[in-house]
Amino acid sequence: METKNILIKNATLIADEIKKSSILIENDEIVEISNDLKFNDADEVIDASGKLVIPGLVNTHTHLSMTLMRGLADDMPLDTWLNDHIWPAEAELNGDYCYAGALLACAEMIKSGTTCFNDMYFFMDHVAKAVDESGMRGVLSHGMIDFGDETKRKNEFKETRRIIDKCHNSADGRIKVAYGPHSPYTCSQELLEEVKKEANKSGHRIHIHVSETQKEVSDSLESKGKRPFEYLSEIGFLGEEVTAAHAVWLSEDEISLIKNSQTKISHNPSSNMKLASGIAPVSKLLAEGASVSIGTDGTASNNNLDILEEMKITSLLQKVNTLDPSVLPAKEVYEMATINGAAAIGLEADIGTIEVGKKADMALLDIKTIRMTPFRNPMSHLVYSAQGGDVDTVICNGEVLMENKKLLTIDEAMVIEMAQNAAEEMLTKKAD
Amino acid sequence: METKNILIKNATLIADEIKKSSILIENDEIVEISNDLKFNDADEVIDASGKLVIPGLVNTHTHLSMTLMRGLADDMPLDTWLNDHIWPAEAELNGDYCYAGALLACAEMIKSGTTCFNDMYFFMDHVAKAVDESGMRGVLSHGMIDFGDETKRKNEFKETRRIIDKCHNSADGRIKVAYGPHSPYTCSQELLEEVKKEANKSGHRIHIHVSETQKEVSDSLESKGKRPFEYLSEIGFLGEEVTAAHAVWLSEDEISLIKNSQTKISHNPSSNMKLASGIAPVSKLLAEGASVSIGTDGTASNNNLDILEEMKITSLLQKVNTLDPSVLPAKEVYEMATINGAAAIGLEADIGTIEVGKKADMALLDIKTIRMTPFRNPMSHLVYSAQGGDVDTVICNGEVLMENKKLLTIDEAMVIEMAQNAAEEMLTKKAD
Repeated sequence: METKNILIKNATLIADEIKKSSILIENDEIVEISNDLKFNDADEVIDASGKLVIPGLVNTHTHLSMTLMRGLADDMPLDTWLNDHIWPAEAELNGDYCYAGALLACAEMIKSGTTCFNDMYFFMDHVAKAVDESGMRGVLSHGMIDFGDETKRKNEFKETRRIIDKCHNSADGRIKVAYGPHSPYTCSQELLEEVKKEANKSGHRIHIHVSETQKEVSDSLESKGKRPFEYLSEIGFLGEEVTAAHAVWLSEDEISLIKNSQTKISHNPSSNMKLASGIAPVSKLLAEGASVSIGTDGTASNNNLDILEEMKITSLLQKVNTLDPSVLPAKEVYEMATINGAAAIGLEADIGTIEVGKKADMALLDIKTIRMTPFRNPMSHLVYSAQGGDVDTVICNGEVLMENKKLLTIDEAMVIEMAQNAAEEMLTKKAD
Repeated sequence: METKNILIKNATLIADEIKKSSILIENDEIVEISNDLKFNDADEVIDASGKLVIPGLVNTHTHLSMTLMRGLADDMPLDTWLNDHIWPAEAELNGDYCYAGALLACAEMIKSGTTCFNDMYFFMDHVAKAVDESGMRGVLSHGMIDFGDETKRKNEFKETRRIIDKCHNSADGRIKVAYGPHSPYTCSQELLEEVKKEANKSGHRIHIHVSETQKEVSDSLESKGKRPFEYLSEIGFLGEEVTAAHAVWLSEDEISLIKNSQTKISHNPSSNMKLASGIAPVSKLLAEGASVSIGTDGTASNNNLDILEEMKITSLLQKVNTLDPSVLPAKEVYEMATINGAAAIGLEADIGTIEVGKKADMALLDIKTIRMTPFRNPMSHLVYSAQGGDVDTVICNGEVLMENKKLLTIDEAMVIEMAQNAAEEMLTKKAD
């Protein structure tokens, strides 16, 4: 492979204080960071004077193709939302729709500084196609649901293995495939145990929803005599390779189980608030030493994919819920959205910080904007004041995906039209 | 005055459903709205095909010049924040700094679709100069604090009357002046009673902070034997001309007092969350029939002035706090940020809706953006998905303040530099 270099000159690196440096990228990797960096042969030079450089943000719980359902149903309880709106719409999904929705989601994530995500949905080879084209990094999992039915279970494993064979390590290694058992209430114990066994054998990660609502906990207590994380612990399911989304309703014992098993938690505050699921005990989890990252969930329950917005909400919600303004300070929230996010998908050695030897995944934000003025505390401005739209350049795996707010790998007008058409067609079919 | 017309063609008007229309503006007023509008003599034609038109948003509690303190102090309790950071910085304020901070705030508000606000701070004639230049509409009040000291009290009235004489009804009537007694714990009963008397006599509104923290309530119970709103009711202070910011800690009786007196409430969720003040019982207030609008508070405790962000947080916080996803549906939140905001400053006959006979205050958002796709439910997209940066054109009092994201009344690069310099100079003086 020919060597390709990008030099990012005179950047302000994200830190508690204002700190300037230049960054040299060789192919997909950061090879030098220095405020005295001399390199005259770069194929591309990005003048980052007046720009803040942050690691590409990591969104650890998404359903990308659900962008097609944005605004379809709001302000209603989870069961009505699912039974009367989301599931009927999902029944009409196909690979083309999932591709269109996923490409729209990739465009939205790139525009708001996210370079990597952890997705669970359907038609995942079509999602992979969108991710490949977008230039993003992601972990994909087919959402497995058997409700105890053996035929369904076999089909779910068949589909998961098909996606692994077709997509794992594709797109220059940017795409990984994980196992995606939907939840302990939609999957049988057999399915969960088989997932754990297979995933451990082949080294794949696991992505699951756990303890999203009070009802899930009370149903679990009724049917299994145990709370969801207690049950998962008892069947040997928890572990550092498992990322559990939501984790809203937790006992003290479950917090210990999460911490001791090193299970990764993806916190989804907007979705939990919008569906009125509850407030996850994030400050307790962090205080206990658990690894917590941030996810947006799908746009049908958020309704956007902006991790910067989610960072602000994450911090503010914990402060008001504990009545302690010192919990989740800006830096801790920043780490949740970067290095903890990387850890939640097993990529902490590769991404999540701007460091020599790591993959070149980063976002540049303009410092000379109204929301960043007066520019004095980059971490604070990033978490509390900035929004997705403040990002102007994004690099993933050494490739520039957006420059000066213009997407380079996705035709923005085209994807908007394609997604609009797919959404309209899908709902017309549903109405038929 | 010469007549000036602006024709906004083929707009999508904000509503529960997609609804197209054209709008004719004559001078400062909306004179016709129709989907069959013929008018060939407009001085300016704005083609709003593919644009969503909403009333200019109203921010009912701000301290504009505090933009200079953005990111100065985060993640700490209210008393440390005030005593060790904000008050020492404020001791160095002067008219020039307040002008710079206010102009930066106006730029930020216009860019995010806000056309009108309710401000309380110092050097308000300098703030008025910024507001006049920006083309915005606003109610200004000098923050009055006497701590029971008669000399201070006299000075506060002197300054308030000076600002009224100099600024009330200035800037073509866009600027109004209100009385701004800071709070029941920083103002004596004498001050509050005199404010009420004077304001009622002259027809001015009143802007005050009430029941922001639990400590304020317990201190009030200790010193006065009554909760803050009970005390204000007893001294005859409440009324439809009073806008109380925060109102976080309320008894059932206080909710009735607010409702019965028609006192207007400005809800400030981000600030209440960030300072860990608490969660205001907004859904209860609304259910009881109280008038509640939305404010950002100052950027030192938010840290931005984006009402669209604040609308999303307002809805989501109430849903999760009541564990009821149906409370504060999109339309109700939209009304809080528009017509309820107008009512909170006594301008409901003039602004807050797009209606013939009202002032031409409005914002246009591009429909063909990623966050608005698929475009199917304007109200939902506005509240749950959009952000300030999605606004591209803003009109206030019949004047175009921003077109295609370019500010027309404020030099953006200049105000960023001026505010940065003012903030740095102010803190250097503080350190001396």
